[in-house]
Amino acid sequence: MSWAETDEVYQIAGLGGRVALGRRPAVLVVDLSNGFTDPASALGSDLGEVVAATATLLDRSRDGDLPVIFTTVAYEANLTDAGIWLRKMPAIAELKLGSPLVEIDARLGRRPGEPVVVKKGASALFGTNLVAMLTALSVDTVLVCGATTSGCVRATVVDLVQNGFRAIVPRECVGDRAAAPHEANLFDIDAKYGDVVLLDELLTDLRSTIAAQTPAPR
Amino acid sequence: MSWAETDEVYQIAGLGGRVALGRRPAVLVVDLSNGFTDPASALGSDLGEVVAATATLLDRSRDGDLPVIFTTVAYEANLTDAGIWLRKMPAIAELKLGSPLVEIDARLGRRPGEPVVVKKGASALFGTNLVAMLTALSVDTVLVCGATTSGCVRATVVDLVQNGFRAIVPRECVGDRAAAPHEANLFDIDAKYGDVVLLDELLTDLRSTIAAQTPAPR
Amino acid sequence: MSWAETDEVYQIAGLGGRVALGRRPAVLVVDLSNGFTDPASALGSDLGEVVAATATLLDRSRDGDLPVIFTTVAYEANLTDAGIWLRKMPAIAELKLGSPLVEIDARLGRRPGEPVVVKKGASALFGTNLVAMLTALSVDTVLVCGATTSGCVRATVVDLVQNGFRAIVPRECVGDRAAAPHEANLFDIDAKYGDVVLLDELLTDLRSTIAAQTPAPR
Amino acid sequence: MSWAETDEVYQIAGLGGRVALGRRPAVLVVDLSNGFTDPASALGSDLGEVVAATATLLDRSRDGDLPVIFTTVAYEANLTDAGIWLRKMPAIAELKLGSPLVEIDARLGRRPGEPVVVKKGASALFGTNLVAMLTALSVDTVLVCGATTSGCVRATVVDLVQNGFRAIVPRECVGDRAAAPHEANLFDIDAKYGDVVLLDELLTDLRSTIAAQTPAPR
Repeated sequence: MSWAETDEVYQIAGLGGRVALGRRPAVLVVDLSNGFTDPASALGSDLGEVVAATATLLDRSRDGDLPVIFTTVAYEANLTDAGIWLRKMPAIAELKLGSPLVEIDARLGRRPGEPVVVKKGASALFGTNLVAMLTALSVDTVLVCGATTSGCVRATVVDLVQNGFRAIVPRECVGDRAAAPHEANLFDIDAKYGDVVLLDELLTDLRSTIAAQTPAPR
Repeated sequence: MSWAETDEVYQIAGLGGRVALGRRPAVLVVDLSNGFTDPASALGSDLGEVVAATATLLDRSRDGDLPVIFTTVAYEANLTDAGIWLRKMPAIAELKLGSPLVEIDARLGRRPGEPVVVKKGASALFGTNLVAMLTALSVDTVLVCGATTSGCVRATVVDLVQNGFRAIVPRECVGDRAAAPHEANLFDIDAKYGDVVLLDELLTDLRSTIAAQTPAPR
Repeated sequence: MSWAETDEVYQIAGLGGRVALGRRPAVLVVDLSNGFTDPASALGSDLGEVVAATATLLDRSRDGDLPVIFTTVAYEANLTDAGIWLRKMPAIAELKLGSPLVEIDARLGRRPGEPVVVKKGASALFGTNLVAMLTALSVDTVLVCGATTSGCVRATVVDLVQNGFRAIVPRECVGDRAAAPHEANLFDIDAKYGDVVLLDELLTDLRSTIAAQTPAPR
Repeated sequence: MSWAETDEVYQIAGLGGRVALGRRPAVLVVDLSNGFTDPASALGSDLGEVVAATATLLDRSRDGDLPVIFTTVAYEANLTDAGIWLRKMPAIAELKLGSPLVEIDARLGRRPGEPVVVKKGASALFGTNLVAMLTALSVDTVLVCGATTSGCVRATVVDLVQNGFRAIVPRECVGDRAAAPHEANLFDIDAKYGDVVLLDELLTDLRSTIAAQTPAPR
C-alpha cells in the first residue's frame, strides 16, 4: 500500500484532525546542539536550512515575548545515565556534559534568559521538568523545531499531546539525517499527534495570537 | 534519499545496535482490543495474522511463567480524559469504558491473572503504572506485540528504552492499518529504540531464557 | 525542638511563601471513596465533617463551572497492579475494582460529567493522566480535598507543585485516621508545597475568580 | 490523639508492613550538597552526623560494588526552571547551577563514576531519569540517605514505592532542620512507604546481600 493509499485509509479512520494554535504558545528547540548540526560529527547532518528557519521563528517569537526553551542531549563522562539507549545508539556516547558538542548551535543566538533543558532520552519531556516549566508559564501550545524528525522531535510531539499540550511543527524548522524517515514521521505526526504546517502560515497565525497575549498570572 | 541509502547513512552514524534479551522478559500486548482488531470498527483493521502470531508467543510465554500484560485504550463517557488527542483522532471517541470495543480480543485467551492496563495516550507507559508493575516484577525486557505499529507500539517502545527496559518487537506480532507507516516505524524502532526480530528467532532465544528463570524475590 | 520553635527556624529559612489562587482553579477530591469514609472498613475513619465540607466546596464550584475531578484507589482482583506498596499497606488489598469500597461516597453527589481517576499509588498524579486532563482544561490551580492528609493528599500536593500547579488545601476538607500525622502534614504542606487555608476564606476568594472565568480555548 | 495512640490506630488499619532488602540495592544520597549541609546557608542546617553516617554506608557499599547515586537541587540563573515551588520556598533561589552550594559535600568523597542527578523538585524521581538509571542497573532496592527528611527524602521514598522499588531509610543517615517534622515524617515513611531502620542493622543485612551479588546482565 502506497503513501497515497494510506492517506485514504486514514481519512476513513477519522485521523488527521487539527489541534490549532491555543492562547499561549512557546517555542521548543529540540537538540539543535553542535553534535546534531555539525555534519562532521557522528550524529550530525547538514541542518543549515533548519537552523535558519528556526532562527526566523525565534526572532518573531522573541519580539512577541513568547517563551523560548532549548533542549540538549548530554551525559556524564561514564555514561551511567545513558541507560539501555546506549546499546541501540552507541554514537550518543559522544555527547558528554561540558563538551562543545552539547552546546546549542551559536547561529540560534540563544539569550541568557532562555533555558536549556538537559535530556537523556528521545522525548524532551522524559526525565526532565519541561512539563512543569510549561505549566508554570501557562503555555498551552508548543511550536516544535529541531532534530531529528524521526527521533527526538517525533518523541517530543507524542509526549506533548499525551500531556495535554497542542504541538505544532513548522515543516521547515525540523530536519533529519535521511529523507525517508523524515517524511514518514512528518506523516505520522500530522495524522495522529500534532499539526505539521508551513512556517509562513505559522508566522501569519502567530501575529494575532501574539497581539492577544496577556501576561501570565503572578 | 531512498530507504537503502538511509541504511547506509545510519550505519555511518552508528545506529542500530542490539539490546538483546535480558534475564526476565515479560510480554506486553498493546491495544489488541476489539476496537482495533475488528476491521468493521473505525480504528480497526484486519489483524488476524497479528493476533494469531501473538497467541503463539503468549502460549509459549505462559508455559514459561513469564508475566503477560495487556493494554486497552478506554475513555469515560464524556471524554474528559481524552484531552487534546481527541482533536487529532476523533475516532478514539468510540473507545468508551465498558464497551465491547475496549475488551481484549477473545482469540488471545486472556487469563484472569493477566492484568489489563487502561491507557489514555499512545504509550502504554504514559498515565499508567506499567513501569511500577514491571519494576515490582523485576522485569528487564519487554516483548512488545499489538497495534498499531506506527502509533501505540512505537510510542511504547520509545518509552520502554527511555525507562531503562529492553524492548523486543517480534515482527509478525505487530500490525497497522496501512503498510507504509508500518514499515517506516519498524525501521525507526530497529534503528533507534528496540530490536525488531522474527518470531521464530525470538521463540528459540526464549527457550534458554525461560530455562534460566529464577523466581523474583519475595 | 517543638513545633513552635520549628516555625521560627522555618521563617529564618524563608519557607512558607504563598502560591495563591491562579486564574483557572479545579477541585480535586482525593480518595473519598467508601473504603476511606466508612469507619467500619480497614482503611476507613470517621470523615463525616470532611465529606460535608467538601460537599460545600463542590456546590459552590459547580455553580461556578469549575472542573471537578475525583480519584479512587482500586486494584485488579489478583493485585498485580499493587506492586511494592502492598507490602507496606496490606489493607489496600480490600480496594478491588468493581467493589462498593472503591465507589465515591454518595454524599458528594458526583455528577455524570465528573471523571473518577483510578490510581494505584499515593499521588493522584502518579500512574494517571491527571496532568494531561488539567493541562487540556487550562487549569493552573488545584483545590485539594480528601483523605488521608498524611498519605494521598500530601503526596498529591507535592506532585502538583512539582508539575507547576498551585495547590490549595482547605483545612476542613481534608482528614486522616489520626490527629498527629494530620497536623504534621498540614504543617509540611503549608510550609513547603501548597497553601493551607480556611474553607470560608477560600469560598470568598473563589467568588472573584469565578466571576473572571473565561471559557477555555476551543 | 497522641503519637502512641496513632500507632495503635495504624496497627488496626494494617499499616506498617516491611518491604525488606531485595536482591540488588543501590545507595541514593539526596541533596547532601553544601547548600543543605552548611548551617550558614539559608536552607542549611547542622547535618554533620548525617554526613558521617552516610559516609559509613557509602564506604561499605562501595566495597560491595553497589551503585551509588547523588542528587542535587540546582536551577538556571533566571530560575525559569524553578516553577511554582519558588513561591513556597524562595530560598531555593540560592541554588544556582555552577555555584559551590549545589556541589556535593566533600566529606562524602564522591568518586568520578558516581553520577549526580540534577533535580528541580522535591522527589529525586521527578523530572529526572533516575528510574531509568535504576532499571538499567537492575536495582530493586534503594537505600535513601540525605536531607531533608520532611522534604526531599520523604518525597523520594513515596515516589520509589510508587515506581515499584523497595525504599529503606537508615535513620542516622537522614536529617532535617527541625526535630518535629523529622520525627513525624520518619513515622509516616515507616508506616506507609519504606522501612526506617538503624544503620547497624542495615550494615549487617547488607553483608549477605552483597555476598550474593551477581553482575547485571550485559
